[in-house]
Amino acid sequence: MPISKQVARYLSKASWIRKLFEEGQQMKREGGGPVYDFSIGNPDLEPPAKFAEALATMAAETTHGRHKYMANVGYPETRRAVAESLSADHDVTFTQDNIVMTVGAGGAINTALKTLIDPGDEVIAVAPYFVEYRFYVENHAGNFVLANAKSSFDLSPEAIEEKITDKTQVVLINNPNNPTGVVYAQKTLDKLGDILRRHSKGRERPIFLIDDAPYRKLVYDMDKCTSAFEAYENTLMGTSHSKDLGIPGERIGFLAISPRCADPARVFEAAAFCNRTLGYVNAPALMQRVVATVQNETIDLDWYRRKRDRLYGELTRMGYSLPYPAGAFYIFPKAPGGDDIAFIEKLKEHRVLVVPGTGFGMPGYFRISYCVNDDLIEGALPAFEAAIKEFKNRAPST
Amino acid sequence: MPISKQVARYLSKASWIRKLFEEGQQMKREGGGPVYDFSIGNPDLEPPAKFAEALATMAAETTHGRHKYMANVGYPETRRAVAESLSADHDVTFTQDNIVMTVGAGGAINTALKTLIDPGDEVIAVAPYFVEYRFYVENHAGNFVLANAKSSFDLSPEAIEEKITDKTQVVLINNPNNPTGVVYAQKTLDKLGDILRRHSKGRERPIFLIDDAPYRKLVYDMDKCTSAFEAYENTLMGTSHSKDLGIPGERIGFLAISPRCADPARVFEAAAFCNRTLGYVNAPALMQRVVATVQNETIDLDWYRRKRDRLYGELTRMGYSLPYPAGAFYIFPKAPGGDDIAFIEKLKEHRVLVVPGTGFGMPGYFRISYCVNDDLIEGALPAFEAAIKEFKNRAPST
Repeated sequence: MPISKQVARYLSKASWIRKLFEEGQQMKREGGGPVYDFSIGNPDLEPPAKFAEALATMAAETTHGRHKYMANVGYPETRRAVAESLSADHDVTFTQDNIVMTVGAGGAINTALKTLIDPGDEVIAVAPYFVEYRFYVENHAGNFVLANAKSSFDLSPEAIEEKITDKTQVVLINNPNNPTGVVYAQKTLDKLGDILRRHSKGRERPIFLIDDAPYRKLVYDMDKCTSAFEAYENTLMGTSHSKDLGIPGERIGFLAISPRCADPARVFEAAAFCNRTLGYVNAPALMQRVVATVQNETIDLDWYRRKRDRLYGELTRMGYSLPYPAGAFYIFPKAPGGDDIAFIEKLKEHRVLVVPGTGFGMPGYFRISYCVNDDLIEGALPAFEAAIKEFKNRAPST
Repeated sequence: MPISKQVARYLSKASWIRKLFEEGQQMKREGGGPVYDFSIGNPDLEPPAKFAEALATMAAETTHGRHKYMANVGYPETRRAVAESLSADHDVTFTQDNIVMTVGAGGAINTALKTLIDPGDEVIAVAPYFVEYRFYVENHAGNFVLANAKSSFDLSPEAIEEKITDKTQVVLINNPNNPTGVVYAQKTLDKLGDILRRHSKGRERPIFLIDDAPYRKLVYDMDKCTSAFEAYENTLMGTSHSKDLGIPGERIGFLAISPRCADPARVFEAAAFCNRTLGYVNAPALMQRVVATVQNETIDLDWYRRKRDRLYGELTRMGYSLPYPAGAFYIFPKAPGGDDIAFIEKLKEHRVLVVPGTGFGMPGYFRISYCVNDDLIEGALPAFEAAIKEFKNRAPST
């Protein structure tokens, strides 16, 4: 065993997403008809035309020094463009000095965590949760604490408050949410803000809210997504253009620091340092220049809305119980019969791949990632119908 | 103080490179003639024409899915191209299953460290050392241990052996070296390999050698650089195309795992996991496709050789004592008088910026980064001559 014991322990716990990905690959190799793979959040959708045009133009430029290191926080022009776009999106005025360009949202969240926590500090996340969060927190020797969402999968400020101790340094949320597709209500975020404000009184360092927001522009029933920045002053948002521009392979995102937080200049300085010393160094140069010009572009939202409407309508008609998926590209139904592992095995017999809620810290549910072609959705509907028929008369485990 | 205490402690220790960068910016703003800035390793040289052509072509392509996530380890075609190039460069045969594409060398070294060490494990580096190494090791709760180089600044296998304990898990080297410009001798590497092999006997996990090798193609007096892979089987190389293609802002590099190491498939699996969970996720997609086509291209080596020759010749003539700079783009002379801080302050009066050896764990020396235009070199030579005249009669501190 040549590797780190800690990493070996991690590897020994099967990742459901990876397991399903591999089983799907195996099924595809074996042939026997289509595989209806709803397991991965890798959008099968092209970036907006303006992104493609800007990329082609800028990649052909021959300006001297265009591939050199820039300041670790990124190009000032890019940070200004991001700050302007954010200021229009929230009732908060950002400047370039609140923005650190990052290697995707993964880079932004890790930079934010390193900036804020010391070894042994507690980070509260909300179950069900994006599987990487536990690793991200443990990367910086933080203690990962879970608070359940409400049964509607809106945030539960009360459940979070119950988990707050004097070691709590960060609350990490994800809005719109992966895996549920739920958009948190503004009044819920406001209530969370009140709680964090109250618990921060008299502390050396306030509790910070980190909002992981890569699905922020993917909301289907509202003009814009609800805002953590408006709910609480000590807020950092980590995000990327992976989903709103459809370029997850390019690793371009940013960390935004609320100008209303405690000593924002100090947080910015520390985040710049952490972005560098965590080995990200800086966000990719060419992509920084490109995204600066397309801050107001978004992939075709109708492409997603249509799929959301179709799946939500059909699954509801079939009798599935599921939270209202107002954003992102996920649906998180209750597993008929209550056993998510048994249920996804049944779907697999129909060549349909979904991820069990167990993989997100919420057994009894399963996640459908609908960033796929309509054919896959239409082809899988009969399997969803057959599976619920078979399971709905079984004894529920919840 | 809203930030992590650990990060606040780091920030309180001034980074010499950053301090000089800021002083240089200040001098440039104030005007009063040119600033001769040799403090930063940010090459002022364009990438090879074939890189620029490949980038323009590939950025204009409209293949479906070209900006999507790929496997975390990168595109198979890119990893095959890298493996072929590596196999030609070393007497070791690599396949794509030994290559993880990374977010630069910073991403590769952090991925390698996370893959190999547990909290409390010791990592031995060689002084003088690249300033980020301490942060990289401490990111993963490793203990950073220093062993001095020889006075010629070749590696000292004996000094490393003295530092080996039962907690030693990694030896981290950098060849060609930053800050010295020295290329380690093959027989020295071989001797280090013998020592690590001997000390690995009977251990649960062998000691690994990590070779940070971004300057590998920048050698001026030999056909190719000496090889850690040939010296020792349990070797990982982290590198990037930042210097050999002159694209540091783009963050594209790779981690290569020796196929001769203990359980290379297990190390690969763990590195793929760590690359993902450290938040890098994958190396930038477009740049992966581009670098796959230009593995045999290198920036204009003569551009660097000419500067190396000029500076080495002139500094030697002036009476500076310095190791032979066979690679990279650094020269590391002894500070006349022995006090590097006093000496760089004197150079600063002449508007010449260099980094004191103190910043690399080696007081009494200073680093010149010569990836700059000839004008800067010619303009600074009189200052180097004036400064040594003033200091050479002072009492040496060493």
